[in-house]
Amino acid sequence: MHLKKEVTLKELAGFINADISDEPDHIVNDISEPESADERSVVYLSNKKFIEKVNNSKAKAVLTSDKIASGSLTDKILLVSKDLEDSFNKLLEFFEYKEKFSPCISDKTSIASGTAVSKDCRVEDFVAIKDGTSIEKNTIIHSFVYIGKNVKIGKNCTIHSNVSIYDGTVIGNNVIIHCNTVIGSDGFGYLQKEGRNIKVPQIGNVVIEDNVEIGSNTSIDRATIGSTVIRKGVKIDNLVQIAHNVTIGENSIIASQTGVSGSSTVGKNCILAGQVGVADHAHIEDNVIVGAKTGVPSRVVRSEEKMIFGTPGRTILKAKRIEAIAGKLPEFYQEFNELKKLVKDKLK
Amino acid sequence: MHLKKEVTLKELAGFINADISDEPDHIVNDISEPESADERSVVYLSNKKFIEKVNNSKAKAVLTSDKIASGSLTDKILLVSKDLEDSFNKLLEFFEYKEKFSPCISDKTSIASGTAVSKDCRVEDFVAIKDGTSIEKNTIIHSFVYIGKNVKIGKNCTIHSNVSIYDGTVIGNNVIIHCNTVIGSDGFGYLQKEGRNIKVPQIGNVVIEDNVEIGSNTSIDRATIGSTVIRKGVKIDNLVQIAHNVTIGENSIIASQTGVSGSSTVGKNCILAGQVGVADHAHIEDNVIVGAKTGVPSRVVRSEEKMIFGTPGRTILKAKRIEAIAGKLPEFYQEFNELKKLVKDKLK
Amino acid sequence: MHLKKEVTLKELAGFINADISDEPDHIVNDISEPESADERSVVYLSNKKFIEKVNNSKAKAVLTSDKIASGSLTDKILLVSKDLEDSFNKLLEFFEYKEKFSPCISDKTSIASGTAVSKDCRVEDFVAIKDGTSIEKNTIIHSFVYIGKNVKIGKNCTIHSNVSIYDGTVIGNNVIIHCNTVIGSDGFGYLQKEGRNIKVPQIGNVVIEDNVEIGSNTSIDRATIGSTVIRKGVKIDNLVQIAHNVTIGENSIIASQTGVSGSSTVGKNCILAGQVGVADHAHIEDNVIVGAKTGVPSRVVRSEEKMIFGTPGRTILKAKRIEAIAGKLPEFYQEFNELKKLVKDKLK
Repeated sequence: MHLKKEVTLKELAGFINADISDEPDHIVNDISEPESADERSVVYLSNKKFIEKVNNSKAKAVLTSDKIASGSLTDKILLVSKDLEDSFNKLLEFFEYKEKFSPCISDKTSIASGTAVSKDCRVEDFVAIKDGTSIEKNTIIHSFVYIGKNVKIGKNCTIHSNVSIYDGTVIGNNVIIHCNTVIGSDGFGYLQKEGRNIKVPQIGNVVIEDNVEIGSNTSIDRATIGSTVIRKGVKIDNLVQIAHNVTIGENSIIASQTGVSGSSTVGKNCILAGQVGVADHAHIEDNVIVGAKTGVPSRVVRSEEKMIFGTPGRTILKAKRIEAIAGKLPEFYQEFNELKKLVKDKLK
Repeated sequence: MHLKKEVTLKELAGFINADISDEPDHIVNDISEPESADERSVVYLSNKKFIEKVNNSKAKAVLTSDKIASGSLTDKILLVSKDLEDSFNKLLEFFEYKEKFSPCISDKTSIASGTAVSKDCRVEDFVAIKDGTSIEKNTIIHSFVYIGKNVKIGKNCTIHSNVSIYDGTVIGNNVIIHCNTVIGSDGFGYLQKEGRNIKVPQIGNVVIEDNVEIGSNTSIDRATIGSTVIRKGVKIDNLVQIAHNVTIGENSIIASQTGVSGSSTVGKNCILAGQVGVADHAHIEDNVIVGAKTGVPSRVVRSEEKMIFGTPGRTILKAKRIEAIAGKLPEFYQEFNELKKLVKDKLK
Repeated sequence: MHLKKEVTLKELAGFINADISDEPDHIVNDISEPESADERSVVYLSNKKFIEKVNNSKAKAVLTSDKIASGSLTDKILLVSKDLEDSFNKLLEFFEYKEKFSPCISDKTSIASGTAVSKDCRVEDFVAIKDGTSIEKNTIIHSFVYIGKNVKIGKNCTIHSNVSIYDGTVIGNNVIIHCNTVIGSDGFGYLQKEGRNIKVPQIGNVVIEDNVEIGSNTSIDRATIGSTVIRKGVKIDNLVQIAHNVTIGENSIIASQTGVSGSSTVGKNCILAGQVGVADHAHIEDNVIVGAKTGVPSRVVRSEEKMIFGTPGRTILKAKRIEAIAGKLPEFYQEFNELKKLVKDKLK
């Protein structure tokens, strides 16, 4: 949520690290989209194609870059930044409504006796915490969160409502888990025997390191043995599936509806776009980008491949070449048939 | 759920707007599938290929159309409708069990003091409602629903169990949200800086207009600034992802496991089938149908394209032509090799 | 979760049905991955490619087969099994931590008066159970589980936290449902009339037979009329969509993020891999395997097709042939152009 608050452009420019073209004493009170802005709004212009929209907006102040702004914004006060994305982020921060943290452990909860929940946490009504679990200071647990046995949760975490965390999960510091996400459900393993599916016990756990953020309605399964590991700084979107014994490397980003199958690994600083499927026992090395909807087979994807795409995932250059010709298959087939006719006619 | 209730065919025919072929005083008490019907059941026949199944059924009464029924149903009493789907809908409504609404706000809840929950709502046990939130009359909130701060919910809504609604969400009238769905989780935005992912504050909200229905386990993210908007009459299935700043136009339908990426728009009266992926900043105009599993790239999809299909999504005619030839690639390649051999043999 | 417990190899070998190569009195206390093992660990070796990793491990005891072990493991005590997967499963069972079941119905729940919950169940704090519902003995209901009206749940079931079960659902014995899964949400059916979407009442239910396990964040919709049926022994992974009126046959396995559309049927002993989409009114016969990401159209898939793959799903042999040539399309097109040039040059 955001909060309207009055500030002079001069003061704001200092906060977001931008130069003002004019009127440092103009007062603004919000950040808006061009369509809904009024003269007290700041709007953000990151692409020349939106210049007209911004010119037509009632906003007087525009955050943009030198390059984008040059000569084409009329009657606007410019906040010009050399690092536009960074200034935009600071602008959002400025108007973001952040609730003051106040520790409080509700007494309308179900907290087992053998737990170690720091009194400097905020635990809302209707939370269940089982035996042997510890939670460090400044962590917020929202309502309807279930935390199993022997779970460790670090400090400064936010666990949103209706999240379920199974026994034995380990969560570091500064971790955010959005609503209705499940951490530690059983890995999907069955032994097929005489036409029946015998459950393979899943006796490992999930380890989530510091500064990880996980979206809503995502599932991360526990390991069969050992740990499913989400390394430092990883960001995972909504409706993502991380199967048993997977490791996601530091600072990697996994977009919505992507699934990573059992025992696969994703390296550091990778990006998996939306609806990607990674087969089991695949190994994606550091810095690889996987395009949307790609199917990654059970192979090693080398860092040198840089960006892969398609099903089965191939380097982007190759995949795009294939896609281009696939898109012209009807014409190709017709050309072929013409050639064939020509040959048959001439060579008969 | 449904309810058995006795009714003469004459009375039922009036309710569902159909003509009776015979025996207006025959009493039925349920709607059934042909296999499980007894002589008091009504069965529904919408396609000639199920005629045998219906003939073999114990049901005496059959709802169908003139065209389907003509001469081929034996020993059945026909309820013949000129608008078969509509009559079927009314038949379902007739036997549907609808609980009588009785307002009641449980005292086993966690409702902050600064809220405005109409006393004509039903709020079940174990509901959490935060400060500044208002809920209008005749709305039902089931157990384990979490409603954040400054949320507005209209009248006649049903919010099923374990739904999570973040701060600042606005919901209209007659909205149904199924279990475990999440409204307003943070948009997935990070600024990559020196190898780290800096969170972009998500200070917008989600707006859901009147008459929207949203399935279970679906995620709709809040906007970065402004609103993610679900317009009037939109119907969204289970496990769907709607990213930040998306707008879904009036009366559009989005099937299960589809994902719409950030800042994309879907027009009015569109249909997105299952497992579709829409890239970010794509714009789908009104009345477009997107086939199952289609990948829609970041482009404008014009209404004139009518139906698109495949990855990347192309007009259905083109996509189907490509698919047809792709399916014959081995034969095509063999034909080519034969021609090549012929040419080489003859021209050497 | 697992539990360290000391046992001699002799005793353990008896439990897991393996032969010991040496040192029957060596004491072990855990099962570990090679990297984290110490000399009291047992490690599992199921594939020759991990021999070096196991040799480098601190573990002294290795569970493996005769064929894998032959001559290549150095300084290890071998537990040699003729049925390696089965022995591994027993080994996991040996170290699995299983909580002793103790019946207890919390009084911090919301259980309607007209229910029949066996006193031999365990119902945790913050559970809601509505009127007319029955639950048999030895079943565990975790916190924040919502169970609607007239639901039947058998014995020895485990319903994990934040699961939502709608009115009229029928669940057999020995069923496990993981966190945040939804059973019985409305089928996705609308009647399009004058540009509006009229809800089709969904008056059927969901029936889940014995020995079914369902992962987390999965949605199974109720039938329009009749039942959506999950037959005995079916195993369903996380984030799966099962639409209205679907039947999944005995012992079939459905992997993560797969969706089965309305009125489709899946036979016995089928395997649907991850991210598969099955169109509506498709019928997959017994024993069919559907490869990952496959799109199954609205047709009958015969048992004789054995394994299908691709979009649209074709027999694996055909699909792989097509894929192979599709992967060489740029080369194919170039070859074609060379031939064309040759022909044009020579035949002019």
